[in-house]
Amino acid sequence: MSADELLLLDFWASPFAMRVKIALAEKGVEFKSQEENLLGGKSELLLNSNPVHKKVPVLLHDGKPVLESSIIVSYVDEKWPTPALLPERAYERSVARFWADFSDKKVYESGNKIWKTKGEEQEAAKKDFIQVIKHLEGALGDKDYFGGDTFGFTDIIIIPLTSWFCAFELYGNFKLEDECPKFSAWMKRCGERETVAKVLPEPAKVCEFITMLRKMQGIE
Amino acid sequence: MSADELLLLDFWASPFAMRVKIALAEKGVEFKSQEENLLGGKSELLLNSNPVHKKVPVLLHDGKPVLESSIIVSYVDEKWPTPALLPERAYERSVARFWADFSDKKVYESGNKIWKTKGEEQEAAKKDFIQVIKHLEGALGDKDYFGGDTFGFTDIIIIPLTSWFCAFELYGNFKLEDECPKFSAWMKRCGERETVAKVLPEPAKVCEFITMLRKMQGIE
Repeated sequence: MSADELLLLDFWASPFAMRVKIALAEKGVEFKSQEENLLGGKSELLLNSNPVHKKVPVLLHDGKPVLESSIIVSYVDEKWPTPALLPERAYERSVARFWADFSDKKVYESGNKIWKTKGEEQEAAKKDFIQVIKHLEGALGDKDYFGGDTFGFTDIIIIPLTSWFCAFELYGNFKLEDECPKFSAWMKRCGERETVAKVLPEPAKVCEFITMLRKMQGIE
Repeated sequence: MSADELLLLDFWASPFAMRVKIALAEKGVEFKSQEENLLGGKSELLLNSNPVHKKVPVLLHDGKPVLESSIIVSYVDEKWPTPALLPERAYERSVARFWADFSDKKVYESGNKIWKTKGEEQEAAKKDFIQVIKHLEGALGDKDYFGGDTFGFTDIIIIPLTSWFCAFELYGNFKLEDECPKFSAWMKRCGERETVAKVLPEPAKVCEFITMLRKMQGIE
């Protein structure tokens, strides 16, 4: 086995797997990818590599599994230090990790409630989701990226989550741009970056996927 | 203000605050502590320092707030590098972070369900909790500590959570030692360490606190 054999256990619509792909692209590191059939049967390799959570992404580095997307991005940053994704100073690192952790806990869950619910419950979910994004917008402030002038760790953690926003907007019947213009401008700025553009799927494809999930879950 | 003025916004029964106190003790770093009245009114300092979550612990370093216990422990490890809490190598660091993250997501929540529920729901919670600890026991294996021979990051994240186990055992009517002897031996080993012993509260005091929480929440 060569020194750096990298295999990503992947799923095209997983925002968490997208994080790893963007991080590796930022580092200019080549990797192979194995698409998992999450709706059908997961591979033995996935089940054996991540027996606790049984989830993508898993990054196998020379056969050794690195698990949990934010932890994988930190691992990639430590293994291939240039360009650095996390800020250099401990305090700024703690701030980057705080917003990454906040996004992990809040964005995906609050957003998914929008397409999973109806009526009053959906209105509450929408309000909750917009509040979460307003918190992020506050953290972004007038900066180009969460860490300042350069695209980095927090951006990599958050931008893939936005690939599902088209479905939140469609089923929640709102435009995030009206509520959070600065955050939306940041989304566009990141989306123009090559490492992001080549990883994030087409919004229409994600919407189709979520429409299918809704049908499978008997919603509508 | 001196170079390293450290103020911890604390609550004696918070396992998350205990993590910070153990990490600082391991580094031999002095700090001041301000006890928050979580059941009464939180201080303005807490609300202003952690406006998103409004929770302890907050570590104010020269007035700048560092938030979220696992992030604070990483911060402490980066600011005062000796003795190192996280392993040196990236892969072992990712493993340490994985089990810390797993504990964050599973131990507290599954354990608290035991004293919050009754009957079948409680039986399911107990089974779930024991399964979580068995996962941790598997990760510990025959090592003295999660990272190997020395007390480190993962130990600091997990050991404070065990300070609530007396209440889980009391209300769940079981003995963790019967189910997970190696994990229980690790608990004792850590408990004998000075930095841990001086931080973890008396089990009887924690049980009393949880009995009070049960009453406040109208359980029994």
